[in-house]
Amino acid sequence: MSRYLSSRFASLEEYVPGEQPQDLHYIKLNTNESPYPPAPGVVKAVTQNEIDRLRLYSDPDCRALREALAAQYGVSSANIICGNGSDEMLSFLFIAFCDAQTGVSYPDISYGFYSVFADINRIAAQEVPLRGDLSICADDYCGLDRTIVIANPNAPTGLCLSAADIERIVQSNPNNVVVIDEAYVDFGGESVAPLTKKYDNLLVVQTFSKSRSLAGGRLGYAIGSEGLIADLNKIRNSTNPYNVDSLTKAVGLASLEEQDYYDNNCKKIVATREYAAQELQKLGFEMPESKTNFLFARHPKLAGKQLYLDLKARGILVRHFDMPRILDYNRITIGTPEQMETLLKTLREMI
Amino acid sequence: MSRYLSSRFASLEEYVPGEQPQDLHYIKLNTNESPYPPAPGVVKAVTQNEIDRLRLYSDPDCRALREALAAQYGVSSANIICGNGSDEMLSFLFIAFCDAQTGVSYPDISYGFYSVFADINRIAAQEVPLRGDLSICADDYCGLDRTIVIANPNAPTGLCLSAADIERIVQSNPNNVVVIDEAYVDFGGESVAPLTKKYDNLLVVQTFSKSRSLAGGRLGYAIGSEGLIADLNKIRNSTNPYNVDSLTKAVGLASLEEQDYYDNNCKKIVATREYAAQELQKLGFEMPESKTNFLFARHPKLAGKQLYLDLKARGILVRHFDMPRILDYNRITIGTPEQMETLLKTLREMI
Repeated sequence: MSRYLSSRFASLEEYVPGEQPQDLHYIKLNTNESPYPPAPGVVKAVTQNEIDRLRLYSDPDCRALREALAAQYGVSSANIICGNGSDEMLSFLFIAFCDAQTGVSYPDISYGFYSVFADINRIAAQEVPLRGDLSICADDYCGLDRTIVIANPNAPTGLCLSAADIERIVQSNPNNVVVIDEAYVDFGGESVAPLTKKYDNLLVVQTFSKSRSLAGGRLGYAIGSEGLIADLNKIRNSTNPYNVDSLTKAVGLASLEEQDYYDNNCKKIVATREYAAQELQKLGFEMPESKTNFLFARHPKLAGKQLYLDLKARGILVRHFDMPRILDYNRITIGTPEQMETLLKTLREMI
Repeated sequence: MSRYLSSRFASLEEYVPGEQPQDLHYIKLNTNESPYPPAPGVVKAVTQNEIDRLRLYSDPDCRALREALAAQYGVSSANIICGNGSDEMLSFLFIAFCDAQTGVSYPDISYGFYSVFADINRIAAQEVPLRGDLSICADDYCGLDRTIVIANPNAPTGLCLSAADIERIVQSNPNNVVVIDEAYVDFGGESVAPLTKKYDNLLVVQTFSKSRSLAGGRLGYAIGSEGLIADLNKIRNSTNPYNVDSLTKAVGLASLEEQDYYDNNCKKIVATREYAAQELQKLGFEMPESKTNFLFARHPKLAGKQLYLDLKARGILVRHFDMPRILDYNRITIGTPEQMETLLKTLREMI
């Protein structure tokens, strides 16, 4: 840091994204991208006319995209805000709904960015320990009277809470916002988006990065009561009103018209996951039941970090987290069946 | 606002972007976009392969784009950071370099977002009055010992400081960051980007939105010492590390290879500006000397707001600011020669 950086960030520990090698030499199973390309209609959405129109500012209200999402969820477009990835949405909501009075609570093992958002906004965070089986216990979040952020399904564990459990958490914290980060919900979880019509303190965050094959497009959104969405728009308009660019809007909108293609991809990914889980278990791996597009696996005879390094040396990237309780694990994104066969073959040779 | 919004934002006044009608029925001279489309090479950069690759995260380091910009400016890529529009860059730098200790100073009439950034970050802002002729006086900023943000050329006035004046400001505030926002520099201003090699407290912000015809693409960047850029990356990595999407990177990179096309556009826009200024003066309009792609004009016999409304009723959008000292003015973006002829014809009919 330079001597000019505000002293309030002296101890800020920034988020470290997963490795993003640009050369494509690896089988990349480390950042939970879809192994399948965007739908054919998405390619067609990027017309010469769209590119010529880049000279004009994008619609800061994201009207067309918000209306299409609203129709899909059966809500009003005033219940939707779009962002430059769900990370930006999370950044906005930590600013809007967390302060010294509210505090914030989230699971101690979850998306690593939550603690960074808390840190940069200087909010006292309460990290609620996962249970011994790596599950989130809904009771731990009932009546906390703090802002609550839960990834459901959780990452990197892959485990789910039921909608009923989440409703209980939302009901028992009526004076605080409960954020459910549903980045992975399309792979077997149960979305609580419908509950946003019933509870004005529930905010659901979703992304186009995983099931909709648009990680590189940077598009996320939140669904909630008009009040919560207006608050998020206030933060957006005070930091970066034109946050979603025109081409991203165009590909996002086209994606929504290709739901069958993406539903089918999700089915394929779930089938591949179930097969890979079985085969990994045959090799001695243990893992929680995943409802996501990744498996969180450990092997009683292999150290997690070493396995990550050995796989990398063999051209396969997975994600290892240097955190005390999960040192033995690696998070393995579900790739194509062929990629998973290569992974399994490599592991069979190694073990 | 909902009852859940943090009370620290109770009085936050968000930024209001210029009108962005999406129907293209207006002659749009209100938000300083280029009247010319992106270069032919930019269209070609959006290949099917680029769209297929959207399934993968974009490079969070923006390496290729930063290297190309660094080569253009004769600096290292460690001296460059890219952002989702220069607004995001400004948001980051207000967070990084302004706090209760440093404060921040900027002209009282300038880019309206500066006061919003100060407000949301709860920084005591000193608004330095423009002189009577709407010019910025460099002496007013010497030895302030505060973080300083100056748009040069300034908007909405269009007036310029010389590089020598800016160097004086930078030298006289050695313990504070001086930010020069060069959004409009390509239309006749003098960039101080070369001075970033000499002064570690100078940060230059630029954008692809104006001269490079990519307002809808959302791409901005900052040039400065390695320390300042590392600080901005710390803020970026703690809020939104994947802030520039893959297609925006591709069109940005292609733009840099089409410098002749954009230089030629700037020449055309400057010629149109000079012609429009002359013709407006013949009609009785008065305006400061513009080095930008807009004119800031008032007419002794026409109220500014009414002129804006009358032009809008006739299908021409310009920008009026409801601010005490500039109520009489309208900011008129330089369009194509044909668009400016229509504007002039309309004004001749009105006067």
